Amino acid sequence: MTKRLEVHQHIKEHRDQHLARIREFMAQPSVSVDDMGMRECAELQLKYYQELGCKEAEIVETPGFPGVWAYYDAGAAKTLAVYTYFDTNAVGDGWTNDPYDVVLAERAPFKEVLYGRGAGNKGTSVAFLNALSSIIAVEGTLPVNLMFVTEGEEFVGSLNIPMMIDKYRHHLSKADAGISPGRCQSANGDVTFHLGNKGNLHIELECSGDMWGKGPHGGPAHSSAACVVDHPVWRLVQALATMYDPEENRILVEGFYDGLLGPTEEDLELIDELVERGLVPGGSGAAGIPRYIDGISGRDLLIRYCFQPTMNINGLRAGYTGPGTILWTLPNTARCTIDHRLPPNLQPPEIAEKIRTHLDKHGYSDISMKILMDVTANKLGVNDDIAQAGLRVIRDWVDNPAVWPRQGASGPTGVFSKMLGIKVLGGTGMGFGSGHTGGDEFMVTEGDGKVGGLVELEQSLVDLMYSYAAYPNEYK
Amino acid sequence: MTKRLEVHQHIKEHRDQHLARIREFMAQPSVSVDDMGMRECAELQLKYYQELGCKEAEIVETPGFPGVWAYYDAGAAKTLAVYTYFDTNAVGDGWTNDPYDVVLAERAPFKEVLYGRGAGNKGTSVAFLNALSSIIAVEGTLPVNLMFVTEGEEFVGSLNIPMMIDKYRHHLSKADAGISPGRCQSANGDVTFHLGNKGNLHIELECSGDMWGKGPHGGPAHSSAACVVDHPVWRLVQALATMYDPEENRILVEGFYDGLLGPTEEDLELIDELVERGLVPGGSGAAGIPRYIDGISGRDLLIRYCFQPTMNINGLRAGYTGPGTILWTLPNTARCTIDHRLPPNLQPPEIAEKIRTHLDKHGYSDISMKILMDVTANKLGVNDDIAQAGLRVIRDWVDNPAVWPRQGASGPTGVFSKMLGIKVLGGTGMGFGSGHTGGDEFMVTEGDGKVGGLVELEQSLVDLMYSYAAYPNEYK
Repeated sequence: MTKRLEVHQHIKEHRDQHLARIREFMAQPSVSVDDMGMRECAELQLKYYQELGCKEAEIVETPGFPGVWAYYDAGAAKTLAVYTYFDTNAVGDGWTNDPYDVVLAERAPFKEVLYGRGAGNKGTSVAFLNALSSIIAVEGTLPVNLMFVTEGEEFVGSLNIPMMIDKYRHHLSKADAGISPGRCQSANGDVTFHLGNKGNLHIELECSGDMWGKGPHGGPAHSSAACVVDHPVWRLVQALATMYDPEENRILVEGFYDGLLGPTEEDLELIDELVERGLVPGGSGAAGIPRYIDGISGRDLLIRYCFQPTMNINGLRAGYTGPGTILWTLPNTARCTIDHRLPPNLQPPEIAEKIRTHLDKHGYSDISMKILMDVTANKLGVNDDIAQAGLRVIRDWVDNPAVWPRQGASGPTGVFSKMLGIKVLGGTGMGFGSGHTGGDEFMVTEGDGKVGGLVELEQSLVDLMYSYAAYPNEYK
Repeated sequence: MTKRLEVHQHIKEHRDQHLARIREFMAQPSVSVDDMGMRECAELQLKYYQELGCKEAEIVETPGFPGVWAYYDAGAAKTLAVYTYFDTNAVGDGWTNDPYDVVLAERAPFKEVLYGRGAGNKGTSVAFLNALSSIIAVEGTLPVNLMFVTEGEEFVGSLNIPMMIDKYRHHLSKADAGISPGRCQSANGDVTFHLGNKGNLHIELECSGDMWGKGPHGGPAHSSAACVVDHPVWRLVQALATMYDPEENRILVEGFYDGLLGPTEEDLELIDELVERGLVPGGSGAAGIPRYIDGISGRDLLIRYCFQPTMNINGLRAGYTGPGTILWTLPNTARCTIDHRLPPNLQPPEIAEKIRTHLDKHGYSDISMKILMDVTANKLGVNDDIAQAGLRVIRDWVDNPAVWPRQGASGPTGVFSKMLGIKVLGGTGMGFGSGHTGGDEFMVTEGDGKVGGLVELEQSLVDLMYSYAAYPNEYK
């Protein structure tokens, strides 16, 4: 018999201290895209691992921003790799308060939320550490061994995760599964559980006069020269036009869809249940989507969302892109960033090769392709230990969670899966937050009876630890 | 007999005061794209016109930045409209000193140059006022009446020039010709004289989910939704791909080339002389151009440069365009700015209509087109009074100026030409400067025997006044 309920009580009694630590972490800026506060935040993260009692804990230098490694050896039978990240999006616009003041306020229907940049990931990862510290306070140790791989580069491509995994492979090879601690509730308290996610190949295509051997070299020309000087931007436009047909919503790169797997019987059962409940994919962006492609809905929509790959231009830029820069140029260079969300059987390196071949075949061998991110899909079976351990906790907290065969998004968890051969579980904590891509980012700290607050978030993460440690035996 | 040489002497003797005024004007920032110092600079400009003795002089409010109108009525037989602008490019990078410290320094081979943002246009326009003040000091008045139309929006499209011309049409309709006082020398002292310039239709195309009725509405979606949500960026790419063929360097919009005029016999004579001298179009950008389109050179190159229209993407942007913004979106909007440099017979409004028709015909009626700038070409005949008055001054200063049938660039002078039915002369002053699109912008204030310094610049502008007033009679 564990002291799980005593731990729950301990969390309730230490809510103030737990909240204070979250606010401390969020008050430390850590914007990777702007190189702001990254080392300071890594050091704070390190301190938290040391305070938890990790015997091994250190900053990991990378060619980019530092990460943090920590190992809590509880002498337990099972070991989990834990992925978290402490960098956040840029501050941007749309804030009511200073995003680093970390203000508590009511936000109907929630009694209390915590506003600030990083409320999403930094809030949750410290809540997880709070939960662990309560277990240790009550039990003296943890029910599982934990190996933390924490990066500061989630918003800039997670390119050094493979290096970090390699560096600690002598430990990590012992991990039985992985988790990426997070929340799983939406604003109305509904719970979504994903059996893994897609991979991501993020590339940058660049067409430049220098590489082309035509057009302006070394810098832009004046636009008046455009009738006698070749044009790299028009060239990139034509090259892109050969790659994707937005009318048919079809990727035109030869062989791109080769080996794509459709849903299994098990997947279709899950899909049908989601359809019956009227669920649709939303993505986590800010947009309203009044109509899906070709007007599809129901089963077709969900199957396409879960099982089709994407080729998404997320950035396109050449020449003048806003006030305060140089007008009237014939740009010498044009760039396009494209992310591809890839279901399990489509491997990012092979897709990259097919795109390269496509460009070459169409006469665009001068257009360069840089791989900015390359993470594999992460696929869980509904009967995998870690999936079952997570699902039963969720079902003990809420009725009828929605189980999706896959999430359309992706993350570095796929790298753990690929390099270590383990299954990685996403968010299972009771709680909600929003705004990490805009202003007024927040996490709910006191809920409304349906959405969990900080106490419920930490308690449900505690339960996950006990559940996985005990599985397939009872954890309660 | 005029006192022209006395005026030249007066300029020499007052070089310090003249230089001080230029530095004062340049020290006042006036960056229209960043809305920095615009009104302060307009007021300084107004003060200069008042000090010159303009009886009418006032700030002109516009929907954008204020302009300045001033009228010097000398009771002379002839009247010139004078176009100048006081806004500058953004500061940008590449500065050795603070661009508003306006530092004097040696810059081999020049004994002295003046560094600072606006050294190009602000330096020259005050040099012109200095020249005029010396004429007035010696003669008591000017040999021609001058009507100044000065804007602060050259870098943001000159959209309010028509409004300004309309407002003072009761005066401006009396103008016999126009000038845009500037310099005409290159770094080695060679002189280029342009018989007018092309027009400019500057447009912005935008494809958005809201206008399309598909894709993300009101804001971006998360990029993971890209397999079920329509994509405005790919749509704009496909639309652009129908407009221009960069392999053939051909505009694909139906009827775009209709009515295009080739060179006249007179033009061909000028071209052949330029070819004989080995001259090529450079544009005023920073780029090296190792190869012109299709490898053309000589006569073909110059004819194409002077007589063909352009369709130049100068800006293309969607989603993520640099560090510090939001990654991983399916952008709800994509924008492209395109300038078209149009020889005299292609009218910007008609070309805009043809582009609109082209987009509609290809099924892109949802893609919006905004006209950012619409200025007509300005064509001078070599035998027009104002051209001859300018050319003879240049020929008195240097041997063998290069006379181009047309400049590939364009400017608001075409609006004067169109609205007032007058010919407008470009730069004829002896002097050189560079860098207005980058850092370390400068004007030569003390030359090297070939390139004129401040004294020669002002003296040659004085000569233009006397030359035009006297034409067709001798001015010396």
